[in-house]
Amino acid sequence: MVSQAEQTKPQSVPIIALLTDFGTQDSYVGVMKGVIWSICPTARIIDLTHHIPPQDIPHAAYVLFSAIQYMPPQTIVVTVVDPGVGSTRRGIALQFPNWILVGPDNGVFTYVLHHYQLLRGIQLKHYNLPNMSTTFHGRDVFSPSAAHLAQGVEFELLGPSIENLEMLSLPVLRLTDEVITGEVIHIDHFGNATTSIGQLHWDADDLLILRPLFQTNAPNTVKLQPERCRVVVNQHELSMSVTYSGAGVGQPLALVNSAGQLEIAVNHGHAAHQLNIAIGDVVTLKIQ
Amino acid sequence: MVSQAEQTKPQSVPIIALLTDFGTQDSYVGVMKGVIWSICPTARIIDLTHHIPPQDIPHAAYVLFSAIQYMPPQTIVVTVVDPGVGSTRRGIALQFPNWILVGPDNGVFTYVLHHYQLLRGIQLKHYNLPNMSTTFHGRDVFSPSAAHLAQGVEFELLGPSIENLEMLSLPVLRLTDEVITGEVIHIDHFGNATTSIGQLHWDADDLLILRPLFQTNAPNTVKLQPERCRVVVNQHELSMSVTYSGAGVGQPLALVNSAGQLEIAVNHGHAAHQLNIAIGDVVTLKIQ
Amino acid sequence: MVSQAEQTKPQSVPIIALLTDFGTQDSYVGVMKGVIWSICPTARIIDLTHHIPPQDIPHAAYVLFSAIQYMPPQTIVVTVVDPGVGSTRRGIALQFPNWILVGPDNGVFTYVLHHYQLLRGIQLKHYNLPNMSTTFHGRDVFSPSAAHLAQGVEFELLGPSIENLEMLSLPVLRLTDEVITGEVIHIDHFGNATTSIGQLHWDADDLLILRPLFQTNAPNTVKLQPERCRVVVNQHELSMSVTYSGAGVGQPLALVNSAGQLEIAVNHGHAAHQLNIAIGDVVTLKIQ
Repeated sequence: MVSQAEQTKPQSVPIIALLTDFGTQDSYVGVMKGVIWSICPTARIIDLTHHIPPQDIPHAAYVLFSAIQYMPPQTIVVTVVDPGVGSTRRGIALQFPNWILVGPDNGVFTYVLHHYQLLRGIQLKHYNLPNMSTTFHGRDVFSPSAAHLAQGVEFELLGPSIENLEMLSLPVLRLTDEVITGEVIHIDHFGNATTSIGQLHWDADDLLILRPLFQTNAPNTVKLQPERCRVVVNQHELSMSVTYSGAGVGQPLALVNSAGQLEIAVNHGHAAHQLNIAIGDVVTLKIQ
Repeated sequence: MVSQAEQTKPQSVPIIALLTDFGTQDSYVGVMKGVIWSICPTARIIDLTHHIPPQDIPHAAYVLFSAIQYMPPQTIVVTVVDPGVGSTRRGIALQFPNWILVGPDNGVFTYVLHHYQLLRGIQLKHYNLPNMSTTFHGRDVFSPSAAHLAQGVEFELLGPSIENLEMLSLPVLRLTDEVITGEVIHIDHFGNATTSIGQLHWDADDLLILRPLFQTNAPNTVKLQPERCRVVVNQHELSMSVTYSGAGVGQPLALVNSAGQLEIAVNHGHAAHQLNIAIGDVVTLKIQ
Repeated sequence: MVSQAEQTKPQSVPIIALLTDFGTQDSYVGVMKGVIWSICPTARIIDLTHHIPPQDIPHAAYVLFSAIQYMPPQTIVVTVVDPGVGSTRRGIALQFPNWILVGPDNGVFTYVLHHYQLLRGIQLKHYNLPNMSTTFHGRDVFSPSAAHLAQGVEFELLGPSIENLEMLSLPVLRLTDEVITGEVIHIDHFGNATTSIGQLHWDADDLLILRPLFQTNAPNTVKLQPERCRVVVNQHELSMSVTYSGAGVGQPLALVNSAGQLEIAVNHGHAAHQLNIAIGDVVTLKIQ
């Protein structure tokens, strides 16, 4: 554990990333930054997003997972989507080899916990603000805990060890020889629909390699010939493309998105509106 | 005054906070940061919010007041909600023991001025950008003045002393033995409605202590038994709760929000939509 | 070229500005910052805006142009409005005396290229992330290239020299002795409509001086008497004003905006809604 303990030492420029459903019309996020900089004035702060739909824990879990691999080593990521604030749900910190995650124990760390090695977890107890509110732990618990970690406080000093973390059920992903079945898990700003079908990447022979990200009853790796793939969503049948401009302007297509998941898009358009796609819609990838 | 003059010296990491109605679709905020970093490249910048409803000075006054106590010592807070830009309204800076406030003299500092001790105020004259526009003093007056303060320029050097600041009228708060009457002063991103009834806090005996924040004809401190309180807004009668999960999912409740004000919320819901609440609506707290 | 080569050296606090159509509901912008700070942890980052309408290159070109003069010397500005991502369009960096611009070669730099001296341009080749996606060059190409420039990598090392940049057609601006004809090129958060008529400024004698920013068949400088000017848009005829409060509350007016362009506004109102103005609408300035 010695080498891991060293990982808790602050880097020369500590970085804290924030992911919330607070929106930006109030001063909630600014107040969190004020608390952080009151404790650790040298921290750099990344806003991952503050526009998670209110109280949508699965949505936050996916956005966190898709972003985290690009965070600099030792980044402390504070996630606050927290409908149970003030209740008995725990505030926690989780140490991974490359990052520390801070937030409520309500399943928001599910995808990360499925894919990265957890070193240890603690319940946040000892670095809360005095006179804690029952409604804003982003300010009173998560920000001061993260800022003290950034200042170099040892991970174990934040509170007692914990086990049995809350986990969400994972999205659908089923594989047979002829059909892969998934669901829409995210719709982005451009209207592109991310599905649970992945991770996908193109190999040197222009084959599509599928290494399931989510639970499945199928083999670990599947090779697909892209010209034989058809993606079906809401009775629309789409071809696989490499770029958004692989279909005509205004035309739908399927591709591998920047997070390695199967995505449904419209070149220069808004796929969710045009194809009437919503979170949870079934998506099938047929191999012809 | 010597000790106060020392407070104008820049801290090792100067912090500037921004609060505007500029939105984020244009580059106005980015341009302010460019001006600030051209003058003081070491400043850290906190975005409190840029989504104050356009020209809504009372709204900005409340958001500023609710956030300021969490700003690090010596923070320079620039507030630009400024429908009178270019007219005879003054640009000012106000020094308080813990912060310096910069912005237009149009009432936006009212709540802060009622609750914190003003040390001195000056009119911004000497650190404006050359070729000042008549439409964007956030860029031409407030940002360069704040950045020079952050660089260590003495407060008094920014311009002449001023008095007789513009003040807004304060929201309603009336107390009798049986009813406390206030109004809705803010609706946040989650649809929670903040009222003028406060400051409230829970004491060790689980009594609610009210120390009026706004003007009132009543005693300074009132003790309330929460189980005897009923909050009425738009003919809905609500009980007092400690957390959002104190009512069933989808059910309305009243609680003490993170700024110490009486707030009306819906567990996992949007109170303003569900109860049809708007800014200015009357709220009564009945003691039974 | 020696003195120009020196300009590529990083400043003590390197600054990177971001301008995208990514919105802020996903983590795309946060991921770009993670990539930047993984490479150059000392960089300061300015968000110019992330709310360019999706794929609207002309809109981004104007916002970039209006903001760039306020960026600190040596700022590296990353612009990602990139419908052709993954296709044959080039990723480029352009060095100007005061800034370096990074982004796709799709015309987004048109206005800047018309008004500032280009020193040299290169195609981005050598500092892309490994395993580049075909859909998110903001993360894989533009951010790492900008971050390496901020770290002090010589401009020429990013890739081969390029010529023949893509350019947009410029907006309408025609001058006769009696009428100046332009068009609406931007509508801001407040509903103010920026036109292609500019640059305008007030001289010491309160005359309006016009030095055309965009192409024209007319002389380089025109002097106008503001009391003889009438601005017409959608059959509304407006007077010139110096400030927004130069007309009554709720009344429309024309003025010189903070970027030096003729702007149509409503005092305390939303001109685009009230006068039914859209991008591309014809605007005439009549001299009576």
